[in-house]
Amino acid sequence: MFSIAIHGGAGTIARHLLDREKQVAYEAGLNAALDAGYALLEAGGSALDAVTAAVVSLEDCPLFNAGKGSVFNHEGRHEMDASIMRGDTREAGAVAGIQGVKNPVLLAREVMTHSEHVLLSGAGAAAFARRQGLAFMPDDYFYDAFRYQQYQEALSADRVQLDHSASGDRKFSTVGAVALDSKGNLCAATSTGGMTNKKYGRIGDTPVIGAGTYASNATCAVSCTGHGELFLRQVVAHQVHCLMAYKECRLEEACRQVVMTDLVAIGGEGGLIAVDAHGNIAMPFNSEGMYRAWRSSNGYAGVAIHT
Amino acid sequence: MFSIAIHGGAGTIARHLLDREKQVAYEAGLNAALDAGYALLEAGGSALDAVTAAVVSLEDCPLFNAGKGSVFNHEGRHEMDASIMRGDTREAGAVAGIQGVKNPVLLAREVMTHSEHVLLSGAGAAAFARRQGLAFMPDDYFYDAFRYQQYQEALSADRVQLDHSASGDRKFSTVGAVALDSKGNLCAATSTGGMTNKKYGRIGDTPVIGAGTYASNATCAVSCTGHGELFLRQVVAHQVHCLMAYKECRLEEACRQVVMTDLVAIGGEGGLIAVDAHGNIAMPFNSEGMYRAWRSSNGYAGVAIHT
Repeated sequence: MFSIAIHGGAGTIARHLLDREKQVAYEAGLNAALDAGYALLEAGGSALDAVTAAVVSLEDCPLFNAGKGSVFNHEGRHEMDASIMRGDTREAGAVAGIQGVKNPVLLAREVMTHSEHVLLSGAGAAAFARRQGLAFMPDDYFYDAFRYQQYQEALSADRVQLDHSASGDRKFSTVGAVALDSKGNLCAATSTGGMTNKKYGRIGDTPVIGAGTYASNATCAVSCTGHGELFLRQVVAHQVHCLMAYKECRLEEACRQVVMTDLVAIGGEGGLIAVDAHGNIAMPFNSEGMYRAWRSSNGYAGVAIHT
Repeated sequence: MFSIAIHGGAGTIARHLLDREKQVAYEAGLNAALDAGYALLEAGGSALDAVTAAVVSLEDCPLFNAGKGSVFNHEGRHEMDASIMRGDTREAGAVAGIQGVKNPVLLAREVMTHSEHVLLSGAGAAAFARRQGLAFMPDDYFYDAFRYQQYQEALSADRVQLDHSASGDRKFSTVGAVALDSKGNLCAATSTGGMTNKKYGRIGDTPVIGAGTYASNATCAVSCTGHGELFLRQVVAHQVHCLMAYKECRLEEACRQVVMTDLVAIGGEGGLIAVDAHGNIAMPFNSEGMYRAWRSSNGYAGVAIHT
């Protein structure tokens, strides 16, 4: 048994504004990432490689707020966060507030594998990326006309926007992937381009192990997307793990408790994707929608945006 | 019933090297911080004010690695982290990698109270501090001859040191405080000057809600000190909360499970202080010692360094 699930962010373009052409493009982006990860699992590859490949694919797609599609911060730059955790060793790596790195998830993996640290930030993290030979891209690689318009709108309103669409809808477009491989190993990874017009070196839940990302072979792998501040306070990904480990909840039950009850109680909009050690998948969200796709070796598969 | 516990770091100067004079100085520093917090609780003050006062006192004391006593990073600067969380609203604030701010815990509290964010970092966090009118100090305020010698030793060995004493012993000298006030509210705060010779914008567990600091009136308030990377991976403070919330462990039992079993299993050296909603105090550590002091309205009180 093996399974993979991916997300391209919770909160969506309002249904009436998502024309057929846009929907097809988003679904194609999600399916490409899903296929990249699933092909590796099918060939006997590891959950670690599968979530890495899926997140790299989403980072390279300009439709999603991560890597190439990152939003603009207050200074008109792109500041990205990412994290990864493997469930077998419970080793983890993460980066916060990095600029210019083509694939933040690869840097997070490099931190996990080739540093003595878990979380590196800012210029220091970029220096580590250069030392490890990771690919950098010039600013115009990350430039996108739509994102730039969002940024200008946000600047003129002096408002921090959680990836704000021109229509006035909010999106939390983090990307992420969780997988179970045929050896029984779980892994989770998450990546984001942050909030439009963000200031003060704000760090959300994405690079925080326990909040945005968590994996343990004993329970599950989790990747979150939503209003980062509330996800940090709720320690969302680790709470799913603890409900399974200490309250003996099943995956679906644990995820629903966290997303539909506890997060709702503090106004925390968003969702998560999770897979357990049996290959079960859960993808709850309390926002209008969540870009997502999933596939298990038992044939359970799909792609969806709204409920 | 009200209680407060504080720590000045786990891992200690080896017993045979801690002369009487040094021991008296450390105990005086701990008692001064304890008294600052306890006096507020006794006067009917809040747990929030009590932990703030205690941590400010520890930050202002040059003996402890936080605020004034912060160690040197690779560039010869002081980069500090801090966090605070209140158990009633479960609001939280934290800062990572800040320079020049006299009392990082006050900035963490300012983030919690007067920003829409939970975690701010680097130059951005310092800009926020300036906007809010927090006190800044010049570099020489943080200068300490002993810390500078540690830094030079570490530089010549190109080694990241978790606050390294000249004797070759390691210390994890974070500071922190947890309290229960007479209204039944819990609060936790943690602050650190980081690792000697640290590079790459490394962030440890101290500014991470769930890892270094957590508080919920339903269970407990926790402040950690130890090898930050392992505490991040174990999501230590939140794990104590979850063992109480979901497995119905008592405080002592939950803390022992996390520190003496789960952290030991992954080589995570350190300890924590915790107080529950009944005013019980737990202070387990798996290192040689932990600078700590505690006092409850029922008369339970003390100060200790080694086991």
